[in-house]
Amino acid sequence: MTDQPTALDLPAVDPLPEQTQAYFDLCVEKLGILPNVLRAYAFDIEKLEAFTRLYNDLMLGQSGLSKLDREMIAVVVSSINRCWYCQVAHGAAVRAYSGNPALGEAMVMNWRAADLDARQTAMLNFTEKVTTDSARITETDRQALREAGFTDRDIWDIASVAGFFAMSNRVASATGMKPNPEYHDSARGIHRFPLFS
Amino acid sequence: MTDQPTALDLPAVDPLPEQTQAYFDLCVEKLGILPNVLRAYAFDIEKLEAFTRLYNDLMLGQSGLSKLDREMIAVVVSSINRCWYCQVAHGAAVRAYSGNPALGEAMVMNWRAADLDARQTAMLNFTEKVTTDSARITETDRQALREAGFTDRDIWDIASVAGFFAMSNRVASATGMKPNPEYHDSARGIHRFPLFS
Amino acid sequence: MTDQPTALDLPAVDPLPEQTQAYFDLCVEKLGILPNVLRAYAFDIEKLEAFTRLYNDLMLGQSGLSKLDREMIAVVVSSINRCWYCQVAHGAAVRAYSGNPALGEAMVMNWRAADLDARQTAMLNFTEKVTTDSARITETDRQALREAGFTDRDIWDIASVAGFFAMSNRVASATGMKPNPEYHDSARGIHRFPLFS
Amino acid sequence: MTDQPTALDLPAVDPLPEQTQAYFDLCVEKLGILPNVLRAYAFDIEKLEAFTRLYNDLMLGQSGLSKLDREMIAVVVSSINRCWYCQVAHGAAVRAYSGNPALGEAMVMNWRAADLDARQTAMLNFTEKVTTDSARITETDRQALREAGFTDRDIWDIASVAGFFAMSNRVASATGMKPNPEYHDSARGIHRFPLFS
Amino acid sequence: MTDQPTALDLPAVDPLPEQTQAYFDLCVEKLGILPNVLRAYAFDIEKLEAFTRLYNDLMLGQSGLSKLDREMIAVVVSSINRCWYCQVAHGAAVRAYSGNPALGEAMVMNWRAADLDARQTAMLNFTEKVTTDSARITETDRQALREAGFTDRDIWDIASVAGFFAMSNRVASATGMKPNPEYHDSARGIHRFPLFS
Amino acid sequence: MTDQPTALDLPAVDPLPEQTQAYFDLCVEKLGILPNVLRAYAFDIEKLEAFTRLYNDLMLGQSGLSKLDREMIAVVVSSINRCWYCQVAHGAAVRAYSGNPALGEAMVMNWRAADLDARQTAMLNFTEKVTTDSARITETDRQALREAGFTDRDIWDIASVAGFFAMSNRVASATGMKPNPEYHDSARGIHRFPLFS
Repeated sequence: MTDQPTALDLPAVDPLPEQTQAYFDLCVEKLGILPNVLRAYAFDIEKLEAFTRLYNDLMLGQSGLSKLDREMIAVVVSSINRCWYCQVAHGAAVRAYSGNPALGEAMVMNWRAADLDARQTAMLNFTEKVTTDSARITETDRQALREAGFTDRDIWDIASVAGFFAMSNRVASATGMKPNPEYHDSARGIHRFPLFS
Repeated sequence: MTDQPTALDLPAVDPLPEQTQAYFDLCVEKLGILPNVLRAYAFDIEKLEAFTRLYNDLMLGQSGLSKLDREMIAVVVSSINRCWYCQVAHGAAVRAYSGNPALGEAMVMNWRAADLDARQTAMLNFTEKVTTDSARITETDRQALREAGFTDRDIWDIASVAGFFAMSNRVASATGMKPNPEYHDSARGIHRFPLFS
Repeated sequence: MTDQPTALDLPAVDPLPEQTQAYFDLCVEKLGILPNVLRAYAFDIEKLEAFTRLYNDLMLGQSGLSKLDREMIAVVVSSINRCWYCQVAHGAAVRAYSGNPALGEAMVMNWRAADLDARQTAMLNFTEKVTTDSARITETDRQALREAGFTDRDIWDIASVAGFFAMSNRVASATGMKPNPEYHDSARGIHRFPLFS
Repeated sequence: MTDQPTALDLPAVDPLPEQTQAYFDLCVEKLGILPNVLRAYAFDIEKLEAFTRLYNDLMLGQSGLSKLDREMIAVVVSSINRCWYCQVAHGAAVRAYSGNPALGEAMVMNWRAADLDARQTAMLNFTEKVTTDSARITETDRQALREAGFTDRDIWDIASVAGFFAMSNRVASATGMKPNPEYHDSARGIHRFPLFS
Repeated sequence: MTDQPTALDLPAVDPLPEQTQAYFDLCVEKLGILPNVLRAYAFDIEKLEAFTRLYNDLMLGQSGLSKLDREMIAVVVSSINRCWYCQVAHGAAVRAYSGNPALGEAMVMNWRAADLDARQTAMLNFTEKVTTDSARITETDRQALREAGFTDRDIWDIASVAGFFAMSNRVASATGMKPNPEYHDSARGIHRFPLFS
Repeated sequence: MTDQPTALDLPAVDPLPEQTQAYFDLCVEKLGILPNVLRAYAFDIEKLEAFTRLYNDLMLGQSGLSKLDREMIAVVVSSINRCWYCQVAHGAAVRAYSGNPALGEAMVMNWRAADLDARQTAMLNFTEKVTTDSARITETDRQALREAGFTDRDIWDIASVAGFFAMSNRVASATGMKPNPEYHDSARGIHRFPLFS
């Protein structure tokens, strides 16, 4: 933990408050790593807690969207914004939740190439418009989601997850946040073909 | 409060928890209105609290950026994203904090038309790039802020405020959030010229 | 009148021809101000007259479009082009003609947020396409206007008003034209709520 | 003259006022054709005169810009806007004024491919920015023109000619205006090579 | 042939291999000129042959697309990319194959202005999407071509010709390739009207 | 080989000519797979050979650019164009040639996030401009490459490789070409961390 998680000189509070340290220890225990985004926010405990509270509610809380749905939204937004940190970290999450490495790649590279059902396609079309052209969203767009089976609460959640990554993509890119290298190879299959040997 | 704050059918928890009601009462007492964004989130108290905690830390907490600086960032981002709710509400805040109605107008219409000093210009140039092209931000951009007098903590705050409105613009536009009408005419000067009479 | 109306060193003809002075006096009498755009053109009386003749025919002459329709077109174009002068001056005109300050704000901030009827929506959709993508206009676009109730002469007028502001936005921005400050607060309502106090 | 100059059903005043007929006769005498833009405006003599007065002042009146300079600006703007009428008609004018068919082609296809001096390059760079991004023009852009030898009056004229074609491109495209076919082959050289035979 | 065909210092192999010289002689005999693109590639005979083999298969080989169809695609792509070399050379080819100088102009200036049938319109709509937004092409786009009468092999050919000019436009622009001046005036009609005299 | 390599119904020549079959067998022997792009072109042997000849010269032939340089260019172009096939296949090649999985990811996600030297940065800046804005390339851009150590022949090669993928991205996307699934997991590292378990 001597390397900086961002390009800014904002060292973590040292020592961390006991509760924060316990939370970080839990992350390492469950994920094998401490995500750099948490290290980045640790220079100010109030900011760290406000961020994690919102993140945990949106990405892990109760919702009509599955955790995979939410991670797919996260990666599609991050791909449009070309956020290095979030594509790496959440691309790994899509691979892990789906058990389908190619699906994670497709969310990063071009979501239209994935083999999606009508509900997922509607969800990602809305996500894309929220990300690139939110000022043109009208009732027609919301109605398309309802017709694809989403409730008004689901629409709120799609908008909120897409909005959250609009924010965190920008904070990560603006501060030069670096993803933990372990993400790159997690949740991959293993092929033994001698490609390009 | 019979009208809906958004286009989604997500009624507020009724009755509100005591603490929430007290917070809303305080808003009305201090602002004269209850901002519709709070009404919109009131369908889920955890979401409301996560949102307000992050908002209050960023916009009202301690920072090297003045409250006016932060509101200028908010409006420039919201203008690029053409978010109706946020331009109306935060445009009013710029007028109020600055005592300069024309400054609020310029943040909405074209921030380059405002008479800004070098520090503010650097801040808004960075804000604009974070908003429209965050993937191209490099150390050069951060260094330009340092040369304009900003600390690394200030850079974090500019990125975070710009990121926050990247999020809330999208949530507001995607859900059809309506600004309280009182904002339109607050913090205006009064001219008696018979323009267009 | 010692301040310059633009960033160019092009002083008005001095003294003005009698007829020009009379026209300017009439403006001040009717509007309470002499719009800076007239001062800007006054360095060359032929240019001033050619401009005002075209302007007055388009904006004040007989047309199937109301004056408010034409001012709404003016502001939507000026908002897309982010012209400081024209958003300020014509935003005030929309407020004045409509008696609805929020409508003027919406034309500046995001016209889709306004509560418009089908005819106005068709008019502003066409205006937007004329402004941003005129090369793709086809008969389909003109037909959509006819179906919304516009005559061919009305279509000419929408195109001409949108075109006129495509021109004057560019002349104003390229020359650094400054709006008269009186516009900012004209035709506003007055609220006494203690917002942001 | 039985074919319509635009896609709108707006027949010319019939008979034309004597003065208008004389002006049209003069055009035919001098150019060999009556430009369709004049036929298009002839449904309303006030509009026709307002248009021609402004056009003639800008394109034929006294200016520090040569007529060729002004036609080069006209074609560069019309190329960016992909206006069929104006590229055809004013491309022919560049060929005619310059005696250089390839220069007319370059203004249409990609002005950067032309062999231009520093003054012309500065003029067309400013023209391009006025056309595509006028809201970002600042004093720096005007100063670049002054350093290339232009006066403040010349800057006004560049902005005004570029602005004029921003307008007329849109009116022409929005109304489906058709160029006179004679333009296509006027002011061409003649090669006898059997290309593509 | 002492002038350089590009801005790079890459002289042709000297002397050319016999077979290459014979091919160049044949070009001059048939076209009256040696196209500069061939001179540009002549610094490396393997590159020259790989290029001409692909070019000749695509543009001159058997296909359900006529040679004029293929040249129209070439110019529409080159116009979007504003490639000086390819617009000049292939614009001439459209004029020559069609016997219609105005059609060549329209492909350069704005293909929507041309008087095209439904099949050609479908072909050029697909060409445009391949050129500007290929990642969004879906089965719907291919189906639209089938409904306009194209076979799957034709679709391959449209994509391949559009793709080829996506490549050669970029090579030409990146290397500063200059078109032979003879193209400008080839396949023009001749008008004797005194336009702009 | 019963699945189709594209969305078009263009079955391979059957049986393949002996020489083609031998080439395909060699691919399988060396790579472990037969790349689908070769299967896609196999409906027409002349097209297959023209494509592979150009590809092999550019990507495997003698050049001042290393094979890794050329694959980095390929992926950066394919990322901008969001070509599913080429990002998958050539992303794997960057991982394989560099032995650095994260480098392959960065070329796909945001090349500016990679840790590149000045020569590579210049190469990819030029690649990006060739891909998105080739009409604006001027001598200044070529000179920047020379100053970074590239020869004129290297500049030709960068332009040609970038141009080649501008072509093949479009052919792949327009025809719905599917990458071999083996690419996804080739040349990855293996991490045992329980991320997202």
